[in-house]
Amino acid sequence: MNDKFISLAHGSGSAQTNQLINDIFKKHFDNPLLTADDAAVFNLSGGRHAFTTDGFIVSPYEFNGGNIGKLSVCGTVNDLACMGAKPLYMTCSFVIEEGFETSKLDEIAKAMGDTAKEVGVNIVAGDTKVAGKGQVDNVFITTSAIGEIKEGVNLSGAYAKAGDAVIVSGDIGRHGCCILLERNEFGMDAEVKSDCAPLWNAIDTLLTEEKDVHVIRDATRGGVGTVLYEIANQSNVGISVNRQAIPLQDPVKGVCGMLGLEPMYLACEGTVVIFAPKEKAENIVNILRKCKYCENTAIIGEVTKENPTMVITQTEIGTQTILPRPGGELLPRIC
Amino acid sequence: MNDKFISLAHGSGSAQTNQLINDIFKKHFDNPLLTADDAAVFNLSGGRHAFTTDGFIVSPYEFNGGNIGKLSVCGTVNDLACMGAKPLYMTCSFVIEEGFETSKLDEIAKAMGDTAKEVGVNIVAGDTKVAGKGQVDNVFITTSAIGEIKEGVNLSGAYAKAGDAVIVSGDIGRHGCCILLERNEFGMDAEVKSDCAPLWNAIDTLLTEEKDVHVIRDATRGGVGTVLYEIANQSNVGISVNRQAIPLQDPVKGVCGMLGLEPMYLACEGTVVIFAPKEKAENIVNILRKCKYCENTAIIGEVTKENPTMVITQTEIGTQTILPRPGGELLPRIC
Repeated sequence: MNDKFISLAHGSGSAQTNQLINDIFKKHFDNPLLTADDAAVFNLSGGRHAFTTDGFIVSPYEFNGGNIGKLSVCGTVNDLACMGAKPLYMTCSFVIEEGFETSKLDEIAKAMGDTAKEVGVNIVAGDTKVAGKGQVDNVFITTSAIGEIKEGVNLSGAYAKAGDAVIVSGDIGRHGCCILLERNEFGMDAEVKSDCAPLWNAIDTLLTEEKDVHVIRDATRGGVGTVLYEIANQSNVGISVNRQAIPLQDPVKGVCGMLGLEPMYLACEGTVVIFAPKEKAENIVNILRKCKYCENTAIIGEVTKENPTMVITQTEIGTQTILPRPGGELLPRIC
Repeated sequence: MNDKFISLAHGSGSAQTNQLINDIFKKHFDNPLLTADDAAVFNLSGGRHAFTTDGFIVSPYEFNGGNIGKLSVCGTVNDLACMGAKPLYMTCSFVIEEGFETSKLDEIAKAMGDTAKEVGVNIVAGDTKVAGKGQVDNVFITTSAIGEIKEGVNLSGAYAKAGDAVIVSGDIGRHGCCILLERNEFGMDAEVKSDCAPLWNAIDTLLTEEKDVHVIRDATRGGVGTVLYEIANQSNVGISVNRQAIPLQDPVKGVCGMLGLEPMYLACEGTVVIFAPKEKAENIVNILRKCKYCENTAIIGEVTKENPTMVITQTEIGTQTILPRPGGELLPRIC
């Protein structure tokens, strides 16, 4: 595209909008379902489907390990994956600030297209609005997707049971820690790469080899701690976590120690929490550790009849404490 | 909800987010598919479906005839309706500015719930982000929806044929004109109510009684003129429009006259352009005029083999002129 910056005309629905769509979005999202009509049309087979949406307003919009485009596809793909649904079709809606660099938008769209291809989801429809300078912070992206739930899979946050093991699919807190460092507000320097990744291929493999899984939830905004409290509430169970078993990269541990942050409340964008019968846990760990993005999968705790709706952590010195309930503003704000 | 204003904590994914979801969104969107899980799960029958998304950033967010909530449901419902698809399931994603009034958010959500009920679409999943003060202009909403295409219906912007009549389902330009007046930038006073309306019920009736329809497209951003150029291009045909046949309310005509605006380029939010064989046109007009929101349906022109990709208007004094091609920034900017 010749224009170096996005102008209000690119959001007017006229020739400039078409140019933006053709030169940037169609180039990277290319698939036969992306037409000039108001909606994409496709055949669906009958059966159980999952449908989700997520809005992305991360600042900065580029970070170590990805950008808002990659994030916007991963977030929605992972939400479907957590329901055991193969992502089929995705839509994306952009709100772009007037004056945004066209080359940056191209990088964002490229990351979306690449990530979509990796998991086989087609981006079939979109919308572009341009907001006046200062009316939006660079770019906001909302993605929605529909997926087909795998035969025989039945997942819900309400299905955790006493005796289940609690598993995380990777080391935790990297996305939140990465964004915090990128903002450079604390004068700290550490090499932390966001875990931002699309997990459908790994979860597909898991659910093909082991169907006896009760809950999968991605630990995004609010981190693993928030997910544990959500599941404890939805399933009315207690959760006991062994602190020493939680995989955590050294730089993340260091940053959390220096700033007094709880890593359990740092966002992940490529890590899920899994609840499954204890006797299946070793098998699940073995399956996932062979999958891309899940090499650090670990069992971190178990579900108990005692202490319903509570999350108890076993500290390094063997004592038990209640994980403080999530609440208030996140530190750092990652969206 | 007790909090009078939305704070960053309402977007943190924690207890306050849950309160917002329960007290505002669940209250107005209530349906059994709206759960605490990452995605909604439902059964779909096999067959052709349509999927679309639209982002809404209208300023002001309340206007004569609706608000951004009603608009966000109408826009997406109408996109599906234009493909002949019964809207089944919708998602909505909010980006709310810190400090936004909770009572206003409640009104917006109520309008969404009411509009969704009117056409029988279920709002099944959502997402809420809160952006810092000044990072977003009040509230942005993105809706996405999936619908089932009616048996025997096959619509596309590429299907207009020489000999088709061009029909509009109501008087044009009211939404754009209304927003322009609401902004009060021109010191003008006129009573113009936005045409913002969900058209599925009308289009469903039309397509049940008359299946021989080639194109339906809603004349939103860019108005009827932009739609005509889109269809002329997609179908590679000429379009001839009789200016005197275009339904236009007097106040809209007056405002356009005073400001030198082309009403064909003013946005509509409850008006579609229909292309169908000339011999079916009277029947279509008769069917639609009995439907809510379509009482002013009129035949405004025809499709020609001559002048492909061009839109020619017949003026009041009998001369022909080319409708200037849409381009550049819209006046008024309605999104």
